Amino acid sequence: MSAPLPEGPSRRLLLGAAAALPVAPGLLGATAAQAQTQTAAPLPSWNDGPVKQAILDFVRATTDSSSKDFVPPEERIAEFDQDGTLWVEHPVYSQIVFCLDRVGALMRARPELKGHEPFKTVLSGNREAIAKLSLRDLFEILLATQSGMDVEAFRADVRKWLAEAKHPRWNRPYTDLVYQPMQEVLSYLRASGYRTFIATGGSAGFVREYSEKVYGILPEQVAGTEQAFKYGYDHDHRPTLTREPKLVLDNLEAGKIENFWLMYGRRPYAAFGNSSSDDQQMLEYVKAGSGARLSVLVVHDDATREYAYGPAQGLPDTKVGTLSQEMYDMGKRQGWTIISMKNDWKRIFAFET
Amino acid sequence: MSAPLPEGPSRRLLLGAAAALPVAPGLLGATAAQAQTQTAAPLPSWNDGPVKQAILDFVRATTDSSSKDFVPPEERIAEFDQDGTLWVEHPVYSQIVFCLDRVGALMRARPELKGHEPFKTVLSGNREAIAKLSLRDLFEILLATQSGMDVEAFRADVRKWLAEAKHPRWNRPYTDLVYQPMQEVLSYLRASGYRTFIATGGSAGFVREYSEKVYGILPEQVAGTEQAFKYGYDHDHRPTLTREPKLVLDNLEAGKIENFWLMYGRRPYAAFGNSSSDDQQMLEYVKAGSGARLSVLVVHDDATREYAYGPAQGLPDTKVGTLSQEMYDMGKRQGWTIISMKNDWKRIFAFET
Repeated sequence: MSAPLPEGPSRRLLLGAAAALPVAPGLLGATAAQAQTQTAAPLPSWNDGPVKQAILDFVRATTDSSSKDFVPPEERIAEFDQDGTLWVEHPVYSQIVFCLDRVGALMRARPELKGHEPFKTVLSGNREAIAKLSLRDLFEILLATQSGMDVEAFRADVRKWLAEAKHPRWNRPYTDLVYQPMQEVLSYLRASGYRTFIATGGSAGFVREYSEKVYGILPEQVAGTEQAFKYGYDHDHRPTLTREPKLVLDNLEAGKIENFWLMYGRRPYAAFGNSSSDDQQMLEYVKAGSGARLSVLVVHDDATREYAYGPAQGLPDTKVGTLSQEMYDMGKRQGWTIISMKNDWKRIFAFET
Repeated sequence: MSAPLPEGPSRRLLLGAAAALPVAPGLLGATAAQAQTQTAAPLPSWNDGPVKQAILDFVRATTDSSSKDFVPPEERIAEFDQDGTLWVEHPVYSQIVFCLDRVGALMRARPELKGHEPFKTVLSGNREAIAKLSLRDLFEILLATQSGMDVEAFRADVRKWLAEAKHPRWNRPYTDLVYQPMQEVLSYLRASGYRTFIATGGSAGFVREYSEKVYGILPEQVAGTEQAFKYGYDHDHRPTLTREPKLVLDNLEAGKIENFWLMYGRRPYAAFGNSSSDDQQMLEYVKAGSGARLSVLVVHDDATREYAYGPAQGLPDTKVGTLSQEMYDMGKRQGWTIISMKNDWKRIFAFET
């Protein structure tokens, strides 16, 4: 049979070929120019040291065709947690903020929920208590506020919120609060033939509304917790899809790597995470694979430029993005690469000059 | 923030830019050369007529920036059923054949299943009865034969089977039996900025082992029925993922479009299918979207070059890939594009000269 033009490795070969050609910058645009610059000096926002070196070594080991750990392009997959790994998760997960904005309408429709947790906490207005809501609490609010919604109406809702909402500390849209060093890792891996995926404990449908624009990660490369969808018909007999009050995929704890396999059928070669609630099994499973594997733990230890939190540093357990001592020790024992945001990152955000 | 190098539209722009540059054929390889040829004369294995024209018109309407129905590149998604739409499904779904090869071992391990359907039918050796096993029967065999397996061992198993198994009529590997006209549609859509997806009633994990090589469709663009996966540890305390005896995603009937949303969060602009058991709601939902939408039904009416079957043509219901009269009428009423394999396709397979 004739070979079709694939979206994968051959497309990347084309990309590589395009980069090798002498072209006018205007033809390929800023993105390509940026990629070329980056290929010249990868990871510019990283301080030199063992962590940066471990990432560079891993990429060389898996992409140099003479390496014993060479990985064919079609198997080059890297998986990233989002909250606390690619962007800020403190003081409250952005998706909880998104859901909170819908709780008022829910209470008017279903006042009987007012006395029940986690709605009681939400309605209390107690910021400290709200900040301690877990991702499991989020799931409950999410199912209550989003069920019955038409799927395309939900898309519009998320986009509207993203355009308007601002983080209280920086007074900027949440999508500005992505970590520049991690953006560079994403670009560097892709320039090295890796496909990059998000595996979030939060809602996949939420992240898909900005992942391509913000991270260059396509909707089909976003795995997350997700509720059921139901096919039906509206009053005009038009077919509809609505969100249902039932979780199908629960991406916390081992669920994150179990569901990654369900959606993609591959063990990643690299994984990046930060939290005990949903990254531990993913990082452990990736590291246990054959050949060169990279498991990376982001430690939030920069109270000045971002936040410092978690029992692994002897800090209070704020529940959001907790890193337990046990998981930290496991990472040390298993040879994970451990990032100190304070020491390994030259800058945190792109908007810092 | 800085824009990362995305895998999506910008990558495609680069691809377009590369195609526009004068390059030595050796640099880009056969695949690119083929794409260029195809762009010159798309769909060469199709006879001219309203069906071919409908596909060409849809692509022009959604990709010409001056068109009222223009679709931005990031939303260009096309969804394909596999069995009976991209490759041969008669006389027995290939995945059923794959599972049957494992039933012997299962019976030795669990002899109590011998008296139960669908195993009783399988063990009878009655080819006609086996040929009538449905996808639901497949799911039952699949859960029984594959549960407890390590996920990577399963991958190896599928690859081994694909390399050895042959279709009884053509005495060729199943992967040779893809429809050349549909390969051309896949390539043409991708050359027009569409991303192409498989949504199969069968097992996603099975299809992912050949979809990139055979169709140019990446594992993350394959949705299908899928069982649960379980994280655990082996005797050496190494982490494991195993297949569990429970379905998480059931891709039959409305499940196919419900789960497409779950995995990708988008309504496709084009959908291709052939069977009442799992394509009707997908085709209906896609066609009901705003703007130009293409829903395509493949009718198996070529008993000489392939097979002819289904009640919609007054032929016996062979259960495999049934097309009901009701679905056929719905398609006519809703303006689906209906392919007659006999009349619309110049040739069926690439190996035909």
